[in-house]
Amino acid sequence: MGRAWILDYDPANCAIGAAVGIIGERPTFLVLREVFNGVRRFDDMQRRTAIPRQVLSQRLGRLVDEGLLRKMPYQESGQRSRDEYRLTDKGLDLYPVLVSLLQWGDRYAVGPAGPPVELRHRDCGEPVHVQLACAAGHVLDSAREVTPVPGPGARKIA
Amino acid sequence: MGRAWILDYDPANCAIGAAVGIIGERPTFLVLREVFNGVRRFDDMQRRTAIPRQVLSQRLGRLVDEGLLRKMPYQESGQRSRDEYRLTDKGLDLYPVLVSLLQWGDRYAVGPAGPPVELRHRDCGEPVHVQLACAAGHVLDSAREVTPVPGPGARKIA
Repeated sequence: MGRAWILDYDPANCAIGAAVGIIGERPTFLVLREVFNGVRRFDDMQRRTAIPRQVLSQRLGRLVDEGLLRKMPYQESGQRSRDEYRLTDKGLDLYPVLVSLLQWGDRYAVGPAGPPVELRHRDCGEPVHVQLACAAGHVLDSAREVTPVPGPGARKIA
Repeated sequence: MGRAWILDYDPANCAIGAAVGIIGERPTFLVLREVFNGVRRFDDMQRRTAIPRQVLSQRLGRLVDEGLLRKMPYQESGQRSRDEYRLTDKGLDLYPVLVSLLQWGDRYAVGPAGPPVELRHRDCGEPVHVQLACAAGHVLDSAREVTPVPGPGARKIA
């Protein structure tokens, strides 16, 4: 086995590290799951995720600050105005992360009753999945078909 | 705006919740990143991720217990035998999660120098990306083209 080339490179500025720095904690994934499922209101999210109110509030604030969610006021008759949370384009672009987690969870972590949620293509109704593809149009079956190479931002360790 | 149907369903048994229960913390993502990049030894991982040794050891143990990594002994001349960590098939199947995080991070979180790592198709050398597709073969451009529906494991709230 060859030594991994990446060992000669600085692990700072990693895109995965940066991404998980923003979203890489359990409550944040659960919040994103809720919003992608169309759940937009604090009380609904709180009840469904069982995240303590203060933690939920802090995570929602972080997602707004990072530009993944935006707040939209709504008002029900006789109540004060409140905010609901909508995905921005930056937030919507996280969808493959959530779908990949769902797909893996469906395969390895869901009980015998099967998946509680399925994803369908809105146009044709067929089930949706995540796949790896290359710029030449090949669909890849496995991580083994991929090789990481240094990109423009790679810096060798001095 | 219609009320989300999912509000009538029990959020337990969620595949995303189950998946992030196993991998949904920052150190675990960083460990998986390292292993997918070919970094297999404790000391290399520790140096690159800067995760405290005790935390790293605990996370690696969890990933072994969950069947995502397996330990393989190796020995360098004059040293005692140690273990390195390899992905199992269950672990390899997490690759789309990591690639999705990388892709999002490349777009939104990486500095002006550009991505430090690029992924290439081993056969043809072209860049690799994650995409959503449906069983009818349509490639989807956005989360907006997907609709979640109740699956076989969905349980209505009594």
